[in-house]
Amino acid sequence: MDTYSFTKSQELFVRAAKVIPCGINGHFSPAMLVPPTSYPFYAERGRGARFTDVDGNELIDYTCAYGPMVLGYNNEVVDEAAARQREAGDTMGAPGPVMVELAEKMVDMLPFAAWALFAKNGGDVTSYALMVARAATGRKKIVAIQGGYHGVAAWMQGAGHHGVIDADVENIVRIPWNDVAAFVRVLAENPGQIAGFIATPYHHPTFADSELPDQGYWESIRELCDKHGVVLIVDDVRCGFRLSLRGSAEFFGFTPDLACYCKALANGYPISALVGSDALKGAAAKVFFTGSYWYQAVPMAAAVACLDELVRLDAPKRMQDFGRALTGGMQRLADKHGYELRVSGVPSMPYLRLTDDPSLMLHQRFCSECTRRGAYFTSHHNWFMSCAHTQEDLDRTLAIVDDAFAALEKSPEGQGGS
Amino acid sequence: MDTYSFTKSQELFVRAAKVIPCGINGHFSPAMLVPPTSYPFYAERGRGARFTDVDGNELIDYTCAYGPMVLGYNNEVVDEAAARQREAGDTMGAPGPVMVELAEKMVDMLPFAAWALFAKNGGDVTSYALMVARAATGRKKIVAIQGGYHGVAAWMQGAGHHGVIDADVENIVRIPWNDVAAFVRVLAENPGQIAGFIATPYHHPTFADSELPDQGYWESIRELCDKHGVVLIVDDVRCGFRLSLRGSAEFFGFTPDLACYCKALANGYPISALVGSDALKGAAAKVFFTGSYWYQAVPMAAAVACLDELVRLDAPKRMQDFGRALTGGMQRLADKHGYELRVSGVPSMPYLRLTDDPSLMLHQRFCSECTRRGAYFTSHHNWFMSCAHTQEDLDRTLAIVDDAFAALEKSPEGQGGS
Repeated sequence: MDTYSFTKSQELFVRAAKVIPCGINGHFSPAMLVPPTSYPFYAERGRGARFTDVDGNELIDYTCAYGPMVLGYNNEVVDEAAARQREAGDTMGAPGPVMVELAEKMVDMLPFAAWALFAKNGGDVTSYALMVARAATGRKKIVAIQGGYHGVAAWMQGAGHHGVIDADVENIVRIPWNDVAAFVRVLAENPGQIAGFIATPYHHPTFADSELPDQGYWESIRELCDKHGVVLIVDDVRCGFRLSLRGSAEFFGFTPDLACYCKALANGYPISALVGSDALKGAAAKVFFTGSYWYQAVPMAAAVACLDELVRLDAPKRMQDFGRALTGGMQRLADKHGYELRVSGVPSMPYLRLTDDPSLMLHQRFCSECTRRGAYFTSHHNWFMSCAHTQEDLDRTLAIVDDAFAALEKSPEGQGGS
Repeated sequence: MDTYSFTKSQELFVRAAKVIPCGINGHFSPAMLVPPTSYPFYAERGRGARFTDVDGNELIDYTCAYGPMVLGYNNEVVDEAAARQREAGDTMGAPGPVMVELAEKMVDMLPFAAWALFAKNGGDVTSYALMVARAATGRKKIVAIQGGYHGVAAWMQGAGHHGVIDADVENIVRIPWNDVAAFVRVLAENPGQIAGFIATPYHHPTFADSELPDQGYWESIRELCDKHGVVLIVDDVRCGFRLSLRGSAEFFGFTPDLACYCKALANGYPISALVGSDALKGAAAKVFFTGSYWYQAVPMAAAVACLDELVRLDAPKRMQDFGRALTGGMQRLADKHGYELRVSGVPSMPYLRLTDDPSLMLHQRFCSECTRRGAYFTSHHNWFMSCAHTQEDLDRTLAIVDDAFAALEKSPEGQGGS
């Protein structure tokens, strides 16, 4: 199987590094991709589940833009709804009527939601959720999960990160995932001081296996929140609409007070949402929350169309099925080649790694060998499935995986190889 | 002159209030518009300097979507550049090459800028600027201006606002605008502790006159920052590119270390930028900074096209000229009708109020009478000029103003009226 080269990506990155700190900053940074010469850095165009990079390589994309792509790049249904709204108007002197339509739709879809508010970033709504919890309770402290990611605001990044000061994090109490006893302990040690508990529906850190909630975990957290008047915030930014169209909390059998949505909401059009219970509507109204582009009508029209498509396609089942077929097929190929591939998380957002590889070097090589053959795999982050991934994509991906394992076998230490 | 009614806006708002806290939240909230029955709440479509609301009323828009509209609604040049990029791809598995092009363009245009980074909200880049200043200096405290607005993060909103806790603001020291002595005092009281100084290029609070920098103000601030190793951050979100295409700091004759851009950058497409000096590039690279849609290529393509158009049109001069003609004409009409209209700030972003009106009730009535006749004026916020406002818009607006003053004269206390 021929392998790609990424020389134009490399050249453009050299130009970028002169005028952009890190060349590419944040979660798209090539610093996470090992070896970086095996990865595309710049996308020229996208269609369906694939994008073509600046070197002309076509890649089956399992990052899905790290989540936003849920129906396929340049999805016609969403793009047409967006185009109709754009032809009328986008960022205007007043919001479009579609803002009301979208709020009504989210309230209809999400059983616990009495209201919705819109912003741009996932981090806009996680930060706002904390402020609503504090406004509602008159308390300061927030319990969060060790290694949990909620965005880049200083409170989220945590102590020791560059630019974060003690005051940013002194009211954030981190406890391990799945540790009800730790929450009980924190509640006892901080009587009447805990405003909110924030976590993702299941634990999906980077560079580590995902962990589902233990049996009864969320039930216990919900009970403790009720007992102590704590606002239960679910950060559904990453897995929202990839587990259930009624919210990931419903999937795991519990009811949050606030939930944050973003990535899969509008198939890449920039919008996030906070939804909440009726009891918190007054607190939400009190906290000032706004941004220059938050009334932009096009992403709202795109979100309405995207949610309708997700319903029409029974999207979570479709993505779970595809994820199962992909990771199952990959595990069989790993077995054939004498490797063990560990799959964690949920099938629509699997985290994969080769076992007996504590340095992750083998898994990194595996992902890079797949990417060089046209299946864009990241080694440190959960992948995302979309409704646009086809049987042809699956067949092609499994052929790539087979060939990549063969390349690993030929050169297990990374010398030479393909 | 016929006056508009806004019944469909009112009806839609009633529906909205059921599913959105405040009905419309944030700076678009009708809570600021007095009386609210005289204002459009929802925009159906926009063209040039005008939008048409859900009641079919056409309004000459002096909010310009509170800043983002700088070339006119549905500007063909920007929209075509955006459409070309969209046809290729938007939010993809990697950034588009246009990210590099845009960074190079901003570095070229802004004389102090050695690099640029992109986000969505103005508040993304003001928060990030603080983190960069703290990372660069190893210090905690930030000096900001009383009444200065930098977004909705808790540190910006200030003590006493709903959802804000002491720890959010304990390292933000607020001093009055134009008060060099206060900055000297804060530096003396906090030796080696001040990481950054953040302010807008001139002071443009809400519900109060704008204030330009005193002669020598910025020169003194720059000197003090240099002497004490303080990072000078200019929040150019609101007036960026409406004063100078080389940055508002250049307009006022000083050089910042970091500057924040947003509103006028892409004519309503959602993007913000932090630009900075070469000395801070390393600190900027260290602070983790990212978001789900920050690599979206369409707003970057729109920004490139928008900046080119701003250059081609000599946009700041054009907006300053229009603003002078508008406010000068309005002052002459005020005089004719026996009122005094005070104009402050800069002509491209004027803040207006009728004098001898401490409760602002008369000015609020004046703005509502104008809006009911088709010139959308807000009473509490500076207005924005755009390159799309035409001589016809000006003539029509002045006719409206004349008629509105006549209505005020007929019913100075607000009883009856038009």
